[in-house]
Amino acid sequence: MILNSTSVYVRMGLSSSADAASVDSMTLFVLLLCACIIFGHLLQKSKWMTESVVALIIGLVTGIIILVSTGGKSSRVLVFNEELFFIYLLPPIIFNAGFQVKKKQFFRNFLAIVLYGVIGSLISFLIVSLGSLQLFKKLDIDLMALGDYFALGAVFSATDSVCTLQVLNQDETPHLYSLVFGEGVVNDATSVVLFNAIQKFDLSHITPTNIFQFIGNFLYLFLTSTFLGVAVGLFSAYLIKKLYFGRHSTDREIALMILMAYFSYMLAELLDLSGILTVFFCGIVMSHYTWHNVTENSRITSRHAFATLSLISEIFIFLYVGMDALDIEKWRFASNSPWTLFGTSAIMLSLVLLGRAAFVFPLSFIANLFRKSRNDKIAFKQQVVIWWAGLMRGAVSIALAYNKFTTSGHTQLQGNAIMITSTIIVVLLTNVVGGLLTKPLIRLMLDPHKHVGSSMTYDFVSEKTLPLLSNGEDSESNIDTGNPIDSSKVVHHYWRMFDDTFMRPVFGGRGFVPLIPASTTEDTQH
Amino acid sequence: MILNSTSVYVRMGLSSSADAASVDSMTLFVLLLCACIIFGHLLQKSKWMTESVVALIIGLVTGIIILVSTGGKSSRVLVFNEELFFIYLLPPIIFNAGFQVKKKQFFRNFLAIVLYGVIGSLISFLIVSLGSLQLFKKLDIDLMALGDYFALGAVFSATDSVCTLQVLNQDETPHLYSLVFGEGVVNDATSVVLFNAIQKFDLSHITPTNIFQFIGNFLYLFLTSTFLGVAVGLFSAYLIKKLYFGRHSTDREIALMILMAYFSYMLAELLDLSGILTVFFCGIVMSHYTWHNVTENSRITSRHAFATLSLISEIFIFLYVGMDALDIEKWRFASNSPWTLFGTSAIMLSLVLLGRAAFVFPLSFIANLFRKSRNDKIAFKQQVVIWWAGLMRGAVSIALAYNKFTTSGHTQLQGNAIMITSTIIVVLLTNVVGGLLTKPLIRLMLDPHKHVGSSMTYDFVSEKTLPLLSNGEDSESNIDTGNPIDSSKVVHHYWRMFDDTFMRPVFGGRGFVPLIPASTTEDTQH
Repeated sequence: MILNSTSVYVRMGLSSSADAASVDSMTLFVLLLCACIIFGHLLQKSKWMTESVVALIIGLVTGIIILVSTGGKSSRVLVFNEELFFIYLLPPIIFNAGFQVKKKQFFRNFLAIVLYGVIGSLISFLIVSLGSLQLFKKLDIDLMALGDYFALGAVFSATDSVCTLQVLNQDETPHLYSLVFGEGVVNDATSVVLFNAIQKFDLSHITPTNIFQFIGNFLYLFLTSTFLGVAVGLFSAYLIKKLYFGRHSTDREIALMILMAYFSYMLAELLDLSGILTVFFCGIVMSHYTWHNVTENSRITSRHAFATLSLISEIFIFLYVGMDALDIEKWRFASNSPWTLFGTSAIMLSLVLLGRAAFVFPLSFIANLFRKSRNDKIAFKQQVVIWWAGLMRGAVSIALAYNKFTTSGHTQLQGNAIMITSTIIVVLLTNVVGGLLTKPLIRLMLDPHKHVGSSMTYDFVSEKTLPLLSNGEDSESNIDTGNPIDSSKVVHHYWRMFDDTFMRPVFGGRGFVPLIPASTTEDTQH
Repeated sequence: MILNSTSVYVRMGLSSSADAASVDSMTLFVLLLCACIIFGHLLQKSKWMTESVVALIIGLVTGIIILVSTGGKSSRVLVFNEELFFIYLLPPIIFNAGFQVKKKQFFRNFLAIVLYGVIGSLISFLIVSLGSLQLFKKLDIDLMALGDYFALGAVFSATDSVCTLQVLNQDETPHLYSLVFGEGVVNDATSVVLFNAIQKFDLSHITPTNIFQFIGNFLYLFLTSTFLGVAVGLFSAYLIKKLYFGRHSTDREIALMILMAYFSYMLAELLDLSGILTVFFCGIVMSHYTWHNVTENSRITSRHAFATLSLISEIFIFLYVGMDALDIEKWRFASNSPWTLFGTSAIMLSLVLLGRAAFVFPLSFIANLFRKSRNDKIAFKQQVVIWWAGLMRGAVSIALAYNKFTTSGHTQLQGNAIMITSTIIVVLLTNVVGGLLTKPLIRLMLDPHKHVGSSMTYDFVSEKTLPLLSNGEDSESNIDTGNPIDSSKVVHHYWRMFDDTFMRPVFGGRGFVPLIPASTTEDTQH
């Protein structure tokens, strides 16, 4: 299929017409990334700031400086590029999330995650779409076609899983992290499907056939994307086990892992599946099998190299969003009607708050019905945190909004410009307010004694993934963080049996003892 | 300076007009990269193949398949993009080379390296330029202006340090590796300066002033580039020592190292210096100071992560060159005159062979005059290996040729098309022949007992960098690989004193004992 394409044509890198300027901006960008890491570290001691907020602020400040230094002439400081985001920045973040996720927690909460991520996103989508349709009409700022309101619903139902990773800590609040982050990943897929469905479907007459078609479409997308990720992950495990096992080819092992993970994402995108879901499950499978088939040095390197790539991508995105917020062009169009802009932003923000409340509390109630142990139920205070932590909208929303309301980053229509600027305002507000208040909120709502100081726990946490390296244990062994319910225990038991009997002999994985004489070389190093 | 630029404008990623096609080619490319690593590994057991040759061949085969499958319609399979090469692919390779280079060997051979890299490149440049001028006239294929011949000389005097890394092994032949690779780095800088000087200078009347100007220009470039690299490297060491020392923030440490190294390269390019020299010295300083200030996990991760990035970039380049070789457009122009093409290619190849012989043997003689110990002199057999191993022309030559003879990858002039195709032929020939014959040549010319089997030594070698991690020793401790001459011993002694007294207290480095209570956490892991 790939080779049949008549236009296999790679155009990467900076456009040659803007050579010198590109080197300028690249240098500036790299410098700003360094600054974000340094200031993020320095400000981390205060329990309020997250690195993403630091990056947003640095981006905004830089944007202002550039605007002032160019005398406001440079109408385009930085063009938000969807492809840069979806092809280069998002994959490492989601892959790393899958690679580092606590698998047991994730699968134990699977029902709740799917409830939030699919049904919840749909509820949120409907509330935002229909709410904005009604309110915009009432306020006489009815600027758009019917389809645009539904697109708006999809844009604002995309929770930003990247932000979630920043405010919730997997080791401090594993249960919440797994719920909110898991929801974010499933929700990303839902939003993209919704968004594409809306672009294609005739919305003027919604029929039951349409709805079934949509549900079928979603199930197909969810299952095939997951299957593809699992398949590529398993293939990588098998390949590395056969080719390199015990050969100490650390660089090649890591290179293969990175390339295969990226391949899974690109292949999914090529087949119009959800690359996000695919690469997430590829990460899970790789950490369950492939990671155990490589040398100890590869294990340490892969853990940290993937986390580093993800960190750089995250900071890059927030810096990008911060700088892009100041794009003069769209503000110029929107500034003719400041009250309209204010109105739309306020409406969207309220609808996002409302839309999320409308599904978190009812769906948590439903999820709790399936949980027998009292300890395991999602308490009301936890529900509040889930509601709050998932409010942040980020780069996915911006990317979708640009896709819908601009033509390759530019717009001349006032209605579209207002939608873009409202999106940016909501993203900035939810990120800054959310970023600043989530940590205090968690301390307030949940047990305060567990969270002494975030900077201390941070230092502890970042190396915590590593004790499991030497004795071959897996993240799965953290069973004591909550009492699993019986049914999940049974499922896990059967999975274990299946894994041990059929999967591990083929794909390696934990406990697969390296049978290599060269392993003595490693032992003498320590 | 950066902020004053009126057009700070980032355009990265794939052009939006070619979205689907780009995803196609990206997916294909990632798949091919995987294939190169896998086949490279499988073929490594044969002592003839190097990974670069495998990548070249896979690239060629893929190009043929695409051509056939599109029925020869797709005239542009892949556009060679200078920026992709110089901004994204080259920096990690050169940085990694500096980071992993055996510093003692490099500095001990510094005189010979500068002789080869500067004087040698100039000799080679003059021979290729004047030789092609004479021979092309005799063969009646005089297609170009005077300046083009000199540009050709610069193009073909650019030794490919990437290829050198592939055929020579730092641990098998450290002395030769350091000479040929060191020459490659200095030579890269010389070629780029030469190339730029030729574009600017009036070549019709070369005056002594011009020549002095050129020498001054080169010295300025060499010294400022080196200084910039050292400065950024030292700053990174200081920063990480102050900020993170003992904090177990592995991901942030690695991210900062990567970003600062990249920053040094971009800044050098922005200031019209040699980014290659800068990032090489930045790598050396980072491995001498910064690397010792980070946690043990960061050390393992950085060694392997940088090597992995470099590996992927290298394979990418060769795959790229292999695929680009089949670009129909230029072959169409060149195929009207197959004999001319054959003639030019043969002439260029002979001149490259001759130009290299003309400086390796005389300059080795001069370098030997300064070496007292008989063991330390460059033997004739070694000179032959140096001559042969540096013959390969690679992506730098192609990038310079494209820069000179095309307008953003396209050309309509027959003379230019012939120059591009000749360059590609020379690059392919030197790489395939060089890649296949260098290892046997080394076995033939040098002590055969030392090199039992390359695949065995390879496995041993790839982990060999790591025993020095645990006990804090440095690559510098391999003193027994050759008898250092007295003067270098004295220089090294004073450098050591200076380093211990002034540098290490500020910038950290080897032996700077971590004073952290948290270090016990690390100990328990092993």
